[in-house]
Amino acid sequence: MGSSYSPLVLLFVLLLFPFSAPSPARSGTVVPRLPGFRGPLPFHLETGYVEVDEVNQEEFFYYFIESEGTPSEDPLLLWLTGGPRCSAFCGLVFEVGPLKFVSAKYNGSLPSLVYRPYSWTKVSNMIFLDSPAGSGFSFSRHVESYYDAGDISWSHHVYTFLIKWLVDHPNFLSNPLYIAGDSYAGKIVPIVAQQVLNGIEAEKRPLLNLQGYVIGNPVTGEKIDLNARVPFAHGMGAISDDFFKLIQRSCVGQDYQSPTDSQCEMCLDTFDEILSEINKYNILEPKCAPASPKPKTKGRRALKEEYLRLLKPPPTPALNCRNYAHILAYYWANTDIVRKALHIKKGTVGEWKRCNYDLPYTMDIKSSIKYHLSVTSSGYRALVYSGDHDMLIPFVGTNQWTRSLNFSIIDNWRSWHVDGQVAGYATTYSNNLTFVTVKGAGHTAAEYKNKECLAMIRRWLSHKPL
Amino acid sequence: MGSSYSPLVLLFVLLLFPFSAPSPARSGTVVPRLPGFRGPLPFHLETGYVEVDEVNQEEFFYYFIESEGTPSEDPLLLWLTGGPRCSAFCGLVFEVGPLKFVSAKYNGSLPSLVYRPYSWTKVSNMIFLDSPAGSGFSFSRHVESYYDAGDISWSHHVYTFLIKWLVDHPNFLSNPLYIAGDSYAGKIVPIVAQQVLNGIEAEKRPLLNLQGYVIGNPVTGEKIDLNARVPFAHGMGAISDDFFKLIQRSCVGQDYQSPTDSQCEMCLDTFDEILSEINKYNILEPKCAPASPKPKTKGRRALKEEYLRLLKPPPTPALNCRNYAHILAYYWANTDIVRKALHIKKGTVGEWKRCNYDLPYTMDIKSSIKYHLSVTSSGYRALVYSGDHDMLIPFVGTNQWTRSLNFSIIDNWRSWHVDGQVAGYATTYSNNLTFVTVKGAGHTAAEYKNKECLAMIRRWLSHKPL
Repeated sequence: MGSSYSPLVLLFVLLLFPFSAPSPARSGTVVPRLPGFRGPLPFHLETGYVEVDEVNQEEFFYYFIESEGTPSEDPLLLWLTGGPRCSAFCGLVFEVGPLKFVSAKYNGSLPSLVYRPYSWTKVSNMIFLDSPAGSGFSFSRHVESYYDAGDISWSHHVYTFLIKWLVDHPNFLSNPLYIAGDSYAGKIVPIVAQQVLNGIEAEKRPLLNLQGYVIGNPVTGEKIDLNARVPFAHGMGAISDDFFKLIQRSCVGQDYQSPTDSQCEMCLDTFDEILSEINKYNILEPKCAPASPKPKTKGRRALKEEYLRLLKPPPTPALNCRNYAHILAYYWANTDIVRKALHIKKGTVGEWKRCNYDLPYTMDIKSSIKYHLSVTSSGYRALVYSGDHDMLIPFVGTNQWTRSLNFSIIDNWRSWHVDGQVAGYATTYSNNLTFVTVKGAGHTAAEYKNKECLAMIRRWLSHKPL
Repeated sequence: MGSSYSPLVLLFVLLLFPFSAPSPARSGTVVPRLPGFRGPLPFHLETGYVEVDEVNQEEFFYYFIESEGTPSEDPLLLWLTGGPRCSAFCGLVFEVGPLKFVSAKYNGSLPSLVYRPYSWTKVSNMIFLDSPAGSGFSFSRHVESYYDAGDISWSHHVYTFLIKWLVDHPNFLSNPLYIAGDSYAGKIVPIVAQQVLNGIEAEKRPLLNLQGYVIGNPVTGEKIDLNARVPFAHGMGAISDDFFKLIQRSCVGQDYQSPTDSQCEMCLDTFDEILSEINKYNILEPKCAPASPKPKTKGRRALKEEYLRLLKPPPTPALNCRNYAHILAYYWANTDIVRKALHIKKGTVGEWKRCNYDLPYTMDIKSSIKYHLSVTSSGYRALVYSGDHDMLIPFVGTNQWTRSLNFSIIDNWRSWHVDGQVAGYATTYSNNLTFVTVKGAGHTAAEYKNKECLAMIRRWLSHKPL
């Protein structure tokens, strides 16, 4: 028989292959087992790298988990984590992914992982992307390029990643695509969406099937994010009526982070002292020693952008603290057998950190509001959700800026339910914008209310009312 | 030898006896063991009756628990429970007493009790008083007198009880005396304190050593108690900014329970619908089926005096519901061996109910504010505390009325701490009035934050700053 195909047929096959083959070749590697997890993983995990900057040889590391539902039809979610420079692995094991650490004292042996049932991978294919370079296992071979990271380059690189990844995984090109993320990534997500949208409008190939974006307890860069801590603290009973009124009177028109009025400044110093005593991630949980002591700062601590300097490994908080798991993640990710299982390139990343704050980052896009306006006005969907006990980025501010977009309200502050219980309140606006509070949750919501947040994303992705 | 004492000596002994004997005869009976509790009780429990109305042969049943500290020196707390007509046993096993039920499905055998370490009996001698008649095991032999219960007769009978009990327990006469209670009893406590104060001023014997009173998530009878649900719900994110403003605009000067303005009435109906979905006892806990279905009511459900119709036994809520323990209490208290152990008089009370709402009750004192003013202005101390996630009697209203007494503020909304964590906020006023919020607690605070509430009462009773 031998080679009986004509050159034309071969050309046809070659042209067709990247877009229609059921299992195309991929740059990533399948990871059937993970150290610390008993038995084979009950979901399809692939890890890999995508070069996002050829000059600097900058590569983004990703964890891709196929939907546990119907991978060929379910949406594709690209998940970014905040910080900036927190690893997307945090999203995977602490928030919306299908794994979590077993809470047990670290004794030198490998921390254990178990399956998390309320994973968003139940209803979507998810890419957890370490970005920008210097986050998690993402790296650059030119050290200087770590120093160039900022909102513009980050979002640009994420878009590059997405294009390349989809070229490499063409069978996901037709799935509905959503950009997603929380905390500081909430600022970057609409910017990435805008770039995808620009590409679509320019008919750039491959054509991405963008449907919208999802952000949780998100930063916008607007002063409203942090100024909202004052009315939030008042509503939650952390400051008195008198003091609330005094701040309001003294700080009219002021940016609470850098007030120019001295009376306002004095008030805000007192306010920050009050807030410094409580856990801003969830005001009802105990304030635990951070996994690394924070640098001492003076003045308006609580109103400064504290999400920039969260945690890095040892010293260790108490075992009953929520952030003890950060220590487990640190030891797990810095173990040789784990790195081997994840196919981490040798010599690229010395110490894996939950959040890498040692590197500089430039907030070169002041506000994400215009991107929200632009993307949603262009017909793309947006889900904005907030854990309502988060003092870091309080729902009060997120509610204010979603409202300030001036879209007409279709359904105002309607309760939504899980297991017959009120899980929070949802407002739907025209332009397919939905704002949702998650009752009792902190920063970020899914870390505290797993089941509720899965129900939320399941309904929203399938275009059902919350 | 024989009878060698002179009549004069005998008279002297008889006169002296009731006040100075180290272990005087008592009407109550020591209860060394309780069915359901393994081994002897690790504290001194006495139960008994005191006749508070001779004509109607009305008797109040009490549980007296000696301080686990220094009974001869520690304060004596008289504990009343709300409803009205909830049993003081609720205070004992759900809130501030040294026992609690083991949470396990009721299987027909006797529910188990265990020791609660964070009991207020660690620092005080406590009388848990079933009152008024028809509550718990308190009864009247003249059924008609059940129908005469109201604020006036209840407080009068409690005062009668206190006098008689102290005559019978003279070795507690010199201990500092505090009247205490929560929820609806918060209205009665200052009225009882006023009666004690009147007795002291009239030099009535025995002279009671009143020092002050303690109330938790208390009712005043003022419209502020329930109107405060609107700003509270807004601060907690249960209603939108717009709707909050609309209610405020529509309901200026209105009593939210019985508004005369139709726009206000419409708003409040909507507000009540919203609140009817959530657990008013603690807005972050699931709303469970009440242990008895409530009568269907129309209109402003949430603003009506719902604390009047709480729970009674079967049907049964889910095991994971906080109020499942109410069912255990029901079965426990209605068991023959338990009644025998408690020395319940036969034929006095058919069915023990956690709260007995079948009997009428007259709120014949409109407001307790003037009693607060009078007693605190007379030099007696007052501790007013609120779980800050209680929607039934929100801290917002309690804060408002304590402030409205117009005492000068000594320390405003200062955080207080337990184990290095903020446990809430405290305001101290002149006239020894302290208002305290308990962070994350519901209605009533000690049920949710045992350890914190013990720390609070320990410091306050020993005149230390919170």
